[in-house]
Amino acid sequence: MTELKNDRFLRALLREPVDVTPVWMMRQAGRYLPEYRATRSQAGDFLSLCKNKELACEVTIQPLERYELDAAILFSDILTIPDAMGLGLYFETGEGPKFKKIIRTEADVAALPVPDSAKDLDYVMNAVKEIRRELNGRVPLIGFSGSPWTLATYMVEGGSSKDFRHIKEMMYATPEVMHALLDKLAQSVTDYLNQQILSGAQAVQIFDTWGGVLSGPMYQEFSLRYMQQIISGLIREHEGRKVPVIMFTKNGGQWLETMAEAGADALGLDWTTNIDDARARVGNSVALQGNMDPSVLYASPERIRQEVGDILGRFGAGSGHVFNLGHGIHQFVDPERPKAFVDAVHELSAQYHK
Amino acid sequence: MTELKNDRFLRALLREPVDVTPVWMMRQAGRYLPEYRATRSQAGDFLSLCKNKELACEVTIQPLERYELDAAILFSDILTIPDAMGLGLYFETGEGPKFKKIIRTEADVAALPVPDSAKDLDYVMNAVKEIRRELNGRVPLIGFSGSPWTLATYMVEGGSSKDFRHIKEMMYATPEVMHALLDKLAQSVTDYLNQQILSGAQAVQIFDTWGGVLSGPMYQEFSLRYMQQIISGLIREHEGRKVPVIMFTKNGGQWLETMAEAGADALGLDWTTNIDDARARVGNSVALQGNMDPSVLYASPERIRQEVGDILGRFGAGSGHVFNLGHGIHQFVDPERPKAFVDAVHELSAQYHK
Repeated sequence: MTELKNDRFLRALLREPVDVTPVWMMRQAGRYLPEYRATRSQAGDFLSLCKNKELACEVTIQPLERYELDAAILFSDILTIPDAMGLGLYFETGEGPKFKKIIRTEADVAALPVPDSAKDLDYVMNAVKEIRRELNGRVPLIGFSGSPWTLATYMVEGGSSKDFRHIKEMMYATPEVMHALLDKLAQSVTDYLNQQILSGAQAVQIFDTWGGVLSGPMYQEFSLRYMQQIISGLIREHEGRKVPVIMFTKNGGQWLETMAEAGADALGLDWTTNIDDARARVGNSVALQGNMDPSVLYASPERIRQEVGDILGRFGAGSGHVFNLGHGIHQFVDPERPKAFVDAVHELSAQYHK
Repeated sequence: MTELKNDRFLRALLREPVDVTPVWMMRQAGRYLPEYRATRSQAGDFLSLCKNKELACEVTIQPLERYELDAAILFSDILTIPDAMGLGLYFETGEGPKFKKIIRTEADVAALPVPDSAKDLDYVMNAVKEIRRELNGRVPLIGFSGSPWTLATYMVEGGSSKDFRHIKEMMYATPEVMHALLDKLAQSVTDYLNQQILSGAQAVQIFDTWGGVLSGPMYQEFSLRYMQQIISGLIREHEGRKVPVIMFTKNGGQWLETMAEAGADALGLDWTTNIDDARARVGNSVALQGNMDPSVLYASPERIRQEVGDILGRFGAGSGHVFNLGHGIHQFVDPERPKAFVDAVHELSAQYHK
């Protein structure tokens, strides 16, 4: 157990004092980096990269060599659990993820196993251990999973979707089947995140990418409820330290008050919510992570710095803010721009932590 | 000028008493109807259908023959204005709209003309006149346009987009170019809607389909501001009657208070906002239109009825509610289902209007 040299990310999530606001970027290991593209082409396809612990570790650490980031995040895919359930995840060029087997009926759901993550997803745990070792206490490592609702959308639609036709039909027409699927997924995600924590993840994030396509009551019943179930089953302390949980529902800005009661230490915000309003609405119950529009990284360093300053000023004084983008960094961003972003967060935030 | 036999839609928009809550469906003339598909194949492609006043009139009226709808909406495309600006709108099968010419630079924007709608978009005005004549006072006719921001996304991206890379780059990196484009579009939309009103449209709706991809401050500066500019230039009374304006920003639920001050008579709501919360937030300043998830139409008539009852109960007593879906009806909906929806609105709402 190596000593953690930079723990401001973990401290901010627990609303403890920090010297400057910590920052990381969703999808920080990704296609916008030429070194990532080189490693990926070495691995072959995307899934082979996820399954090779040395290469997964390499791409996880690449952005830390360029930018003064305060956290690393496990490089993996969001759909490892459905793949381990036997659905046959594959990627077609320019098409996004697809599954060979699609889940539509009660019988389909009944036949699904709950994976034993330590065994069936050992390649993920091996990557976590490898990255932790390689980081050597430099910054904390974040583990992650998709939310049950989000995983279910891909399993029922068979891939990405624009209108979520089939899963919404399942939800409105046969809610008991939908609940059975989500319950299996919640059990699977709980075990998956706990194994990541036991393997060395020092914080975990639940990505609810598609919870925001639901109405308020449906969000609570079909997405939030299962994230709450997961959070209540997570290991919350490990290696003598709290393991904070971040819950991020894209387009969930209207439901922050309810989300704040789900047991997470922090809520992720996309850029459609003003962080000052969000802070006023959730009070001191949770930390906030976010929330610059990733598209700002297409602008000049001066404009990026201005936007960072605006968001920091909105959050205001005190701890409880982890700076981030409101969604993953885009693949066409010039790799010089995130440097301006990360440096601006550190430089401009010191005044709020005196 | 024929007497209007059913004016509850117009009355509800102005928050005047009604007997039952009026209802219509966004995209009610569309692919889910076999008779629409027949007329469309007769016309050839989609644009030819829009440009043929008899056929455009025919598809506009088709859903009224099946369901007790309280309004008709002009059948046309959202991108007629950029097409009239010379961008060359076309459709590739299964691909969505595309433009031959794409707008990216200051020079591109400077070269764009503001169309003279009476002349350059006379096919739209002819369709409005034809539909008004054919409706013969049965229900009011709604005219519409895309918002400047929404039109601009297609013009700058060259079609549909997932990440709005190019327009956001324009907005953050060269805001003055973005404003010049939006100002031309606002002028064009104002004239376009006024010509529709003069041709017979009895209410108008501004569709801001993509305003919700912006941050709060950017939404105000680049989308709402231009809709406000349009509204302040619209003919608000015609044929001795008020012409109500509906403003609909998809995923705009977080900004309702500001939107309520833009001068529109009604705000459209998608299904992610609870209509009781929305009503509490905007008070008596505007009417509300919405907001059932169109996916509920995949469920049983009983489930549809339950959802309608829930939304009506949330809105509560009094006028100021136009029932609608939160977005366009999906193409795979069984045409029997909207009947259950429309009838439920009328049957279950009478109790709230005593």
